[in-house]
Formats: sequence, C-alpha cells, structure tokens
Amino acid sequence: MAYIDLPAGLPGIRALLSYRPETARPLNDLVDVLLRRPHTLAPGERELIAAFVSAANECTYCQLIHGAVAARQLGDAEDLVEQVKRDLESAPISAKLKALLRIAGKTADSGHSVTADDIACAREQGATDLEIHDTVLIAAVFCLCNRYVDGLATWTPSDPDFYRQRAKVIVDNGYSLATTTNT
Amino acid sequence: MAYIDLPAGLPGIRALLSYRPETARPLNDLVDVLLRRPHTLAPGERELIAAFVSAANECTYCQLIHGAVAARQLGDAEDLVEQVKRDLESAPISAKLKALLRIAGKTADSGHSVTADDIACAREQGATDLEIHDTVLIAAVFCLCNRYVDGLATWTPSDPDFYRQRAKVIVDNGYSLATTTNT
Repeated sequence: MAYIDLPAGLPGIRALLSYRPETARPLNDLVDVLLRRPHTLAPGERELIAAFVSAANECTYCQLIHGAVAARQLGDAEDLVEQVKRDLESAPISAKLKALLRIAGKTADSGHSVTADDIACAREQGATDLEIHDTVLIAAVFCLCNRYVDGLATWTPSDPDFYRQRAKVIVDNGYSLATTTNT
Repeated sequence: MAYIDLPAGLPGIRALLSYRPETARPLNDLVDVLLRRPHTLAPGERELIAAFVSAANECTYCQLIHGAVAARQLGDAEDLVEQVKRDLESAPISAKLKALLRIAGKTADSGHSVTADDIACAREQGATDLEIHDTVLIAAVFCLCNRYVDGLATWTPSDPDFYRQRAKVIVDNGYSLATTTNT
C-alpha cells in the first residue's frame, strides 16, 4: 500500500501523476521529448536505456513498463530486453548502443562515475554529442522516476500482460496523452 | 572541461539547458512548480531539500546554487544551510522539516530506502500527504539534476559570490525566466 492516499486502481507512477497534475504535465513532457521525438537513436533504443537504468535501480514497475515498450518498438524483442538488463556485454546490440548503455549505468550510480574514457569509447563507436547528452539525461530522468515510484511505495502489478497492454497504449499515444486519458 | 561541446561561459546545468532547449523547458517548469508555487512548505524550505540532496550526491554546483537560494529565502541563513548539510540532526530547524529532510536523504540513496516508519515520523510532526509527496519528488528531481550536471562534467565555479549573485536572479525571476533571459 502506498505511503500517501493516492487515486485507487492506478499502478506505479500513474497514481502519482494523477495525484499531482501540476508536476505530471512537465514530467510527461520531458519524457515525451526524450523518448519519442525524432532522433538518431530509435525510440526503442531510448526506451531500452530507460529500462536498463530502472533495472539497475531495482525499480520493478519502471523496468517492466519501459522494457515492454522497448520490446514492442524493437519488434517483439522481449528476450533481447531481458538479456540487456541481465548481461549487457553479451547482448546482440550495436557497439554504439552498448557504449551508451554503459554510460547510462554509470550515471545511475553517480554523475561522478562517468569518465572521459566512457565518453571516448562511445565516440569511437560513432556516438554524437546529442546522443551522449540524451543518454545521460534519460538515465538521470529514470533515476528520478525510479525513486518517485518506490519512495512512495506505489502499487506494482505482477502480471507481465498488464505491461504489454499498457505498452501498446503508450506506443500509440505517447506519455502525456496516455496519462491524460487514463486509458 | 565538459564531455560535450557546450555553450561557453555558462556554468553547471545552465550550459546544458542552453544546449538542449527542448528538454530545458519542461525541466525548468517542473522545478518552478515544485520549488516556487504557493505551498505549505516555504520556498526556502523546499530549496533546503534540494541543497541537502545535492550535498548527499556530492554535486558541488547544485548544492551551492540551491544552498545560496535557500539562504537568501530563509533570511541571510548561510550558516544554517551549511549546518543542515553537515549535521542535520543538530540543526535548529522544525521537527517536521527535519523528518522531511530525512525522507529526502533516504530517497537520494534509493526509493527502496524510504520506510513506513520514516513516513509515520513525518506525519507525527504534522507533515501532510502533499508535503511528503513533494519532498520525495523534489529529492528525486535533484537526483536527476545532480547526475545531469556531473555526468557531463559541466563547469563548476568556485567563488561563493558567483552563487550569491545568481541566487538573487533566481529568487526574483524563477528558474524558467532566469534561464531564458540568461541573466
């Protein structure tokens, strides 16, 4: 049971966004810009960064919903998402995405953990300034979301189908609209 | 030197906000809503939460700027801000604010570190659901900002007067406007 009195029936961050619409609006806008706007990193790649960081922070709700969205956007890729979370180095993804995910993992630990060598490694694999910037910011945003969701002990459904169904709504509508309509 | 090519002469998060205005807008809006809108916690108390979390995360830029803003808003309170960051339990602040700062410190560690006892302790001192919610969210937002600022190795001025002068601009204008005008 959540630590504060939240709207009934809404899981994870959705209950918090409904409780406090004034902060929900800019938070959803930030996530929509970072994960969904046109970009040299595919939406599924950016969702994978979100899921990977959420797994590092042991936030079950965030890693399952963003994992489900990533899997859907990358094309029925549930096994790949699990492999990236479990053992990044052996996962069959590009060397550039792997280098960016390493930076995301360091960012989850602390901003100070990211080194010039980590950045150089990503650049060697072709990562641009904007890709490096957005990787660090996506990781930082999910350090926010993970703490928000777990720090207030929100409800975490355990059925994977719940996350698959919600992922379809998010992929089709985006975060702002999916939250506003509460579908 | 920052890890990516940022606008020259801007310190800390300001260089990042200038580099990526699409994400700067919702991020500034989120901080303005949380730290500056009318609330049962004074603006200076909310800035103190931001400074306390930033100190826990060892983010020099964020702890100095939000410490300077808190000191200004709480009335020439630089010594108090330093005492809260150094030794919370001995600081001469209300039992309610102390309980909320303990929750903020736990949130900085991990969402899972916040316990039902921490929440009960804050409630016993009169904290409301909204105050508990906003404390966790402010702490989570600064876990974002700290990682963003340090993960990209932005410039951190060392002169305390720099932060005092900037604090005046922020107190007078808010975060969105202070960033837009780059004063």
